[in-house]
Amino acid sequence: MDKLDTSASLESLTPAQVRALIRTNDHTGSTSGLAKGYLQANLLILPADWANDFLLFCQKNPVACPLVGVSEPGSRYIPELGHDIDIGRDVPEFHVFHDGQFTQAVYDLDALWRDDLVIFALGCSFSFEEALIQAGLKVRNIEQNTNVSMYDTNIACLPAGKFSGNMVVSMRPFPPKDAIRAVQVTSRYPKAHGAPVHFGDPQAIGIDDISKPNYGEAVDIYPGEVPVFWACGVTPQNVVRHSKPPFCITHSPGKMLITDLLSNALAVL
Amino acid sequence: MDKLDTSASLESLTPAQVRALIRTNDHTGSTSGLAKGYLQANLLILPADWANDFLLFCQKNPVACPLVGVSEPGSRYIPELGHDIDIGRDVPEFHVFHDGQFTQAVYDLDALWRDDLVIFALGCSFSFEEALIQAGLKVRNIEQNTNVSMYDTNIACLPAGKFSGNMVVSMRPFPPKDAIRAVQVTSRYPKAHGAPVHFGDPQAIGIDDISKPNYGEAVDIYPGEVPVFWACGVTPQNVVRHSKPPFCITHSPGKMLITDLLSNALAVL
Repeated sequence: MDKLDTSASLESLTPAQVRALIRTNDHTGSTSGLAKGYLQANLLILPADWANDFLLFCQKNPVACPLVGVSEPGSRYIPELGHDIDIGRDVPEFHVFHDGQFTQAVYDLDALWRDDLVIFALGCSFSFEEALIQAGLKVRNIEQNTNVSMYDTNIACLPAGKFSGNMVVSMRPFPPKDAIRAVQVTSRYPKAHGAPVHFGDPQAIGIDDISKPNYGEAVDIYPGEVPVFWACGVTPQNVVRHSKPPFCITHSPGKMLITDLLSNALAVL
Repeated sequence: MDKLDTSASLESLTPAQVRALIRTNDHTGSTSGLAKGYLQANLLILPADWANDFLLFCQKNPVACPLVGVSEPGSRYIPELGHDIDIGRDVPEFHVFHDGQFTQAVYDLDALWRDDLVIFALGCSFSFEEALIQAGLKVRNIEQNTNVSMYDTNIACLPAGKFSGNMVVSMRPFPPKDAIRAVQVTSRYPKAHGAPVHFGDPQAIGIDDISKPNYGEAVDIYPGEVPVFWACGVTPQNVVRHSKPPFCITHSPGKMLITDLLSNALAVL
């Protein structure tokens, strides 16, 4: 392989090196496949007067919203996620919402930052996808080089204060034998949504057409395979749309915060 | 409850107390539900010149044939399973096979014992059924007070020397969410067949009619449930029928050897 191939060199960088490129806007794309082995986080940023309710929401819905860090109000740092991470600049792209509606995408938060904002960092399924591959399983969305298929469901999250809404799930198809192994592997990663929440019949959780994901892209499901569904980090964004906080910022889908924590450092067992 | 109720008092006995009743033929029935928490074992007894091949067969097929003990040739004792257990008398009933064919049932092995016989003790699913119930799951065959449903499959065991044959599986139906939990719970018990080997479509493993088990009894499968299949300790009996050793003894189905080992002492994690 050409040593100057950009993606190959990007993939060989440390978390700090990738974040340095992101900070200068020299990388504004997906973080999928980057800094392998390190935890990547979903972000939700809320004004302090909405933050306590969201903290409680995460406590009540730990499978969909596995908290890995919370900032002090007004701080753009969560030290336990790594050294010298300015979350306001070290994420490739952010989405801004007003009253639950998407309003703009930005590359940093310098112009938008406020002293009352609280950052929530939530684990993501990248951690367990790496573990599935290391266990010899084939992850279809990675094989097909597409974004994972995600669906709205009728599974209600437990409400907390001003927050309520249904769970969003990601789907990966497996033959039953591999699905059983996938339950075992992902159970080790509760901070990355843990074990599946459902498999088989999509309608049982309110998905009418498996070929039409609400987010991400459709993947092939081969004969003999069953769809396996995990709680998804897009759930908070769905909850924001439903609960309509006046102001909210998230990362852009697929463009995550790369932390200095090894995924396996948060694995159980 | 009447303190003199026979089954209630049987269920409150220690492993040694139950075996004492079995030794005198005062209990010749099923051991299901007795000495709860203690490992019960499937038995296969073979002449020494067939024993090494079966030992290798177990090594190659640990999910269907989880060995928990092997006797010295001619000995009716496996000390690591408990004190003072005369396996030739402390099992409610045995089945005798010649050339792979069932020939008789006996209550003890005194008349049949030979100096070249080797006893193999294999873990059984009673251990994980207790764990499933303790995890709050409903085990249909226990709810319906029937023997578990068991099926011949087209899953070939790895052959070893003179032994070959297909896996026999047991089936318990669950809603998908509980099936996922059941994978987690039973994964802890590799000496009781561990995690399921399949779920869903019965034909994928060669089962043509789920309502007609080859062994045990049929149970109801309710709407929204999927059949979940575990490797079963009847597999060795199927392999014996197929491989036709000149002489062989097993326990009678459901009438197991009760050991002094706690099931949880053999659990992993």
